[in-house]
Amino acid sequence: MTIYLDNAATSYPKPPLVYQRMIESLQLSGANPGRSAHRMARAAQQIIEDTRLKLAKLIKAQSLEQIIFTFNATDALNIAIKGVLSTGDHAISTTLEHNSVLRPLQNLAQKDILLSLVGFDSQGFVSPQEIEKQIRPETKLIAVTAASNVLGTLQPIAEIGDIAKRHNLLFLVDAAQALGVIAIDVQQMQIDLLAASGHKSLLGPPGTGLFYLSNRAKVKSWREGGTGGDSLSPLQPVELPFQLEAGTHNLAGIAGLGAALDFLAQESIEKIRCHELSLLEYLLNSIQEIDEVKIYGSNDLTRRVGVLSFAVASYRSDEVAAILDQHFDIAVRGGLHCAPLVHKTLGTSPDGLVRVSIGAFNTLEEIKLFITAIKEIVVG
Amino acid sequence: MTIYLDNAATSYPKPPLVYQRMIESLQLSGANPGRSAHRMARAAQQIIEDTRLKLAKLIKAQSLEQIIFTFNATDALNIAIKGVLSTGDHAISTTLEHNSVLRPLQNLAQKDILLSLVGFDSQGFVSPQEIEKQIRPETKLIAVTAASNVLGTLQPIAEIGDIAKRHNLLFLVDAAQALGVIAIDVQQMQIDLLAASGHKSLLGPPGTGLFYLSNRAKVKSWREGGTGGDSLSPLQPVELPFQLEAGTHNLAGIAGLGAALDFLAQESIEKIRCHELSLLEYLLNSIQEIDEVKIYGSNDLTRRVGVLSFAVASYRSDEVAAILDQHFDIAVRGGLHCAPLVHKTLGTSPDGLVRVSIGAFNTLEEIKLFITAIKEIVVG
Repeated sequence: MTIYLDNAATSYPKPPLVYQRMIESLQLSGANPGRSAHRMARAAQQIIEDTRLKLAKLIKAQSLEQIIFTFNATDALNIAIKGVLSTGDHAISTTLEHNSVLRPLQNLAQKDILLSLVGFDSQGFVSPQEIEKQIRPETKLIAVTAASNVLGTLQPIAEIGDIAKRHNLLFLVDAAQALGVIAIDVQQMQIDLLAASGHKSLLGPPGTGLFYLSNRAKVKSWREGGTGGDSLSPLQPVELPFQLEAGTHNLAGIAGLGAALDFLAQESIEKIRCHELSLLEYLLNSIQEIDEVKIYGSNDLTRRVGVLSFAVASYRSDEVAAILDQHFDIAVRGGLHCAPLVHKTLGTSPDGLVRVSIGAFNTLEEIKLFITAIKEIVVG
Repeated sequence: MTIYLDNAATSYPKPPLVYQRMIESLQLSGANPGRSAHRMARAAQQIIEDTRLKLAKLIKAQSLEQIIFTFNATDALNIAIKGVLSTGDHAISTTLEHNSVLRPLQNLAQKDILLSLVGFDSQGFVSPQEIEKQIRPETKLIAVTAASNVLGTLQPIAEIGDIAKRHNLLFLVDAAQALGVIAIDVQQMQIDLLAASGHKSLLGPPGTGLFYLSNRAKVKSWREGGTGGDSLSPLQPVELPFQLEAGTHNLAGIAGLGAALDFLAQESIEKIRCHELSLLEYLLNSIQEIDEVKIYGSNDLTRRVGVLSFAVASYRSDEVAAILDQHFDIAVRGGLHCAPLVHKTLGTSPDGLVRVSIGAFNTLEEIKLFITAIKEIVVG
């Protein structure tokens, strides 16, 4: 039985009800939601709207039509970034970001926009003040990850939201590593644009992404096509969520995500976070005692999610990951984790680090076995 | 038990193995494919590549990296259209198209490109010669549906492909209603860009789309982000399929699609087409005997897929669909089917038509019950 410690890539396993609802949705109401008016299509539509409501409640959205279902978080981030920036605009982001934020921004910065990237401190935190310093008259957008996918460090989202609000800028949060383990309140945190995966800490299946936009955020259409209604309009309708939801929904995925959200509500995000932090604490304390291991990021557990990256002396990160896989059946991820500037800053590029990411279903026993494995590796 | 005749929206049911493989993929190898190197991630990647190979064989692609997994057909069409057209280009398409082709083109035509839309004849066919007449020096793209989602008429794709090749234009085919019921050979038909759904006649789950591009088609990046490899590049990598596959794959969807493709290979597309055509023949012959019913499109079965649209005297199309649903538990789709210009041409806008769409699992008994229901409705 694999010890799965790669939950930052995708969570595994899912709550059993997720699998069940995926299949039930297709077997019992596997029509095309929103496309026809017959009972099977209405039942399918109900599944979509039930999950939309659960997501709206989770992030405290003002209204349901602000919740858009996307392919994945990358899809949502592209919708956000390309949807709000126009020629001449200036955007501020950070070197903590994943390539799903960096690449759209850096592509636009080749000719259309201006981009400033703010660094992070030795503990892995971005400074709101450093972000504020970069603001100029052309600034339109601040884009920041809620939690680093390499260091696990939680960023001061609410403070940055205050700054964005004060300067009348749009604030985009990449919540791929945060939503489902920390409370995110889009109104309180002044978030205008939020992107997240359904298949990471939300515990849903892949093929699901979430995009939220506030009332003041106007986003250009992205995927244009059929929406089931308003067929006569030659252009994409402007009404949300239809403007941003062309094409057939991933019914099974959204049904599974709905089941996952029920699980999170029942177990409570606080309880899951508590569990993950207790495992992280044990992991941090134990791994720090191994001389050959160098860990990165903050020791302040309250400012972390269950992600830890480290180097092992005289091994490349992919070697450690391969030995853990082959000899111990432990799944972790080596390399750069699609976040090149984090590793450049840490001086760990191009080799990268070994990343352990804890999920809701990991146990203390698994963490102990992982520590034992690392100790065996360093002994050689 | 619902009589499901809405297969052009999405096919129902799926082959049983589709549901099973979806769940197995998540339960046994539910890691993030291509993201880590451990055995679960490799097993997940294998599922993706197995399905990619099956799709490549199905459409006779030259190589595997030409097969791109997308969110849905709409996503693939947006990638194609926005990926090849630049300011000043001219595109030719048809009034038979779905909004997923029309809306991206019409949006671009507002300022960046020039667009010509060719009509169709009284039988529901586009003329290759009419398309050729529209070609000018600025023409870059010809975009045509393989089968109308309203009339079910198969378009002369190979002939149009010849014209595109002769004039050195890119040829985009919307195969959403065709792939899985007719043989599509991208090389023989000179198709440069192909978009299709995984969840219609391919019998896979929703959340899956296919995009194919030929070696001579260069497409701009669309969804930019992490690809699992090449993390150091500040821009989206140019290598296919990675250039067009950023973000986490819909593993369960792609696993299910793989099972569906196995089913199609085993049963054979020819046999399924034969079955659907025999039901369509019975349907056409029987419904034509009802005076109050007016059918649209060609009577030539060899040039149709299992889609039939009709009007019933003194009823709106949505009324007929609602009565069929409520009184007979028969699922069909009324309205405009996201293809407004088809209905405008037919003179059936804005009311639309009743669309019956036959799938692989429909039976003659179901078609007979449907005919009986229509007869009861017209009697009132």
